[in-house]
Amino acid sequence: MENQKLFCTLSFVGTAYCGYQVQKVGVTVQQKLNEAARAVFGTECDIIGCSRTDSGVHANMFCITVSERGQGYLKTSIPTERIPLALNAHLPRDIAILSASWVPKNFHPRYDVRHKEYRYLIWNSPIRDPFREGLAHSYPHVLDADAIARMNLACEAFLGEHDFAAFMAQGSKVTSTVRCIYGAKVTKNDNLITFTVSANGFLYNMVRIMAGTLIAVAEEKISPSDIPEILKSRDRSLAGSTLPACGLYLNQVVYGF
Amino acid sequence: MENQKLFCTLSFVGTAYCGYQVQKVGVTVQQKLNEAARAVFGTECDIIGCSRTDSGVHANMFCITVSERGQGYLKTSIPTERIPLALNAHLPRDIAILSASWVPKNFHPRYDVRHKEYRYLIWNSPIRDPFREGLAHSYPHVLDADAIARMNLACEAFLGEHDFAAFMAQGSKVTSTVRCIYGAKVTKNDNLITFTVSANGFLYNMVRIMAGTLIAVAEEKISPSDIPEILKSRDRSLAGSTLPACGLYLNQVVYGF
Repeated sequence: MENQKLFCTLSFVGTAYCGYQVQKVGVTVQQKLNEAARAVFGTECDIIGCSRTDSGVHANMFCITVSERGQGYLKTSIPTERIPLALNAHLPRDIAILSASWVPKNFHPRYDVRHKEYRYLIWNSPIRDPFREGLAHSYPHVLDADAIARMNLACEAFLGEHDFAAFMAQGSKVTSTVRCIYGAKVTKNDNLITFTVSANGFLYNMVRIMAGTLIAVAEEKISPSDIPEILKSRDRSLAGSTLPACGLYLNQVVYGF
Repeated sequence: MENQKLFCTLSFVGTAYCGYQVQKVGVTVQQKLNEAARAVFGTECDIIGCSRTDSGVHANMFCITVSERGQGYLKTSIPTERIPLALNAHLPRDIAILSASWVPKNFHPRYDVRHKEYRYLIWNSPIRDPFREGLAHSYPHVLDADAIARMNLACEAFLGEHDFAAFMAQGSKVTSTVRCIYGAKVTKNDNLITFTVSANGFLYNMVRIMAGTLIAVAEEKISPSDIPEILKSRDRSLAGSTLPACGLYLNQVVYGF
């Protein structure tokens, strides 16, 4: 439509991809979306994503805009409700467009995010689950209810606005390392531990370092009461290790419109 | 142990395998188990499974016995609780031994089954779920509560002892086509339809043909009240189509011991 960009939600299994963003080397989700959009709309498109997910990271919900290259809008005669099926027919089976709608030309899928929610899944058993291969991080030592309670105490210390420099991977360039955490909690159902965290934004590897820190809290290597000091220190070496990408899911993206 | 066979439960994602049973062509689950048992126990082993699952069929629970080739028993110095981890270290990531215990030499994992439960999963949405690729059959036309209710009426007609010749694939050789169904039901949670059925035994492709018949019932091509006549007819052409292997899971195996 004139003056409108196409807005799509999608989900993908990240295992086969070198992250979302197009790179010089390696297949990315954005590249597959570019190919599908070209096939469906008959023109080169600019595709902008809500986040630069890492290699192997999954998305239950990811958002993109699609516009004609250099134009900022998209024209198509395809009825909006048919667009997901049309794009899916040209996408690999590990990526699916879930919905399509229209947004103003000035909407930006990354800058206009109000908050995002990530999940980090941990398969907590000495016995692996073949159905979760590549879809959860495996932590074999079984964590009891006390350990989960300690992890939740640490989660409470993350809430609110803090400088998360200690929870950011080296080599990332951002103007501010202050982020506001709206929610953080750990649940355990059978052998599956889920860490859910929402914030107004996330630093590079932040969720994976938070999850690694929670494991250190479960192991009593870090106390929940240490978290405020680790935050204040801005020292990456005081937080826990970075857990693998395979457990991480972008779960929800909320816009201010 | 002398006079004892090893009994193991396992789960596997069947996508990569030409079924459970060793064949002349194609990689099977049994072949991978043979290789792992040889590596762990240092001898060729006889591995007997509870069922001959088809190519692409999955198992949440599958049972095997392991004994030294031609001996009917297994000797090992490995502590029983370490055996799953030892075998898993030699198995591909899509197969996992869940537990190990010991059973008498005369125990047979197929003949001694009291009942087995299968599940058939249907992803019921025009939009595919990348996380269920190869793990559920995709049926795009959304089925409403009335359709699910009709499927459950048809399930009731399956209960009890019947001749299931109409629900058996051609070319299978069995002495009797009579089986007793202990439970059969259909549930729908969000977009996932689950057909669960337990019986004292199943004929070749029986669950996949039952699932296909339930879809025909949902589509009002077959009425629930037609099921008794289809059973009586022993005519395969009157039942529904055989749904794909990817939706089928061996879910539970119960023994009489």
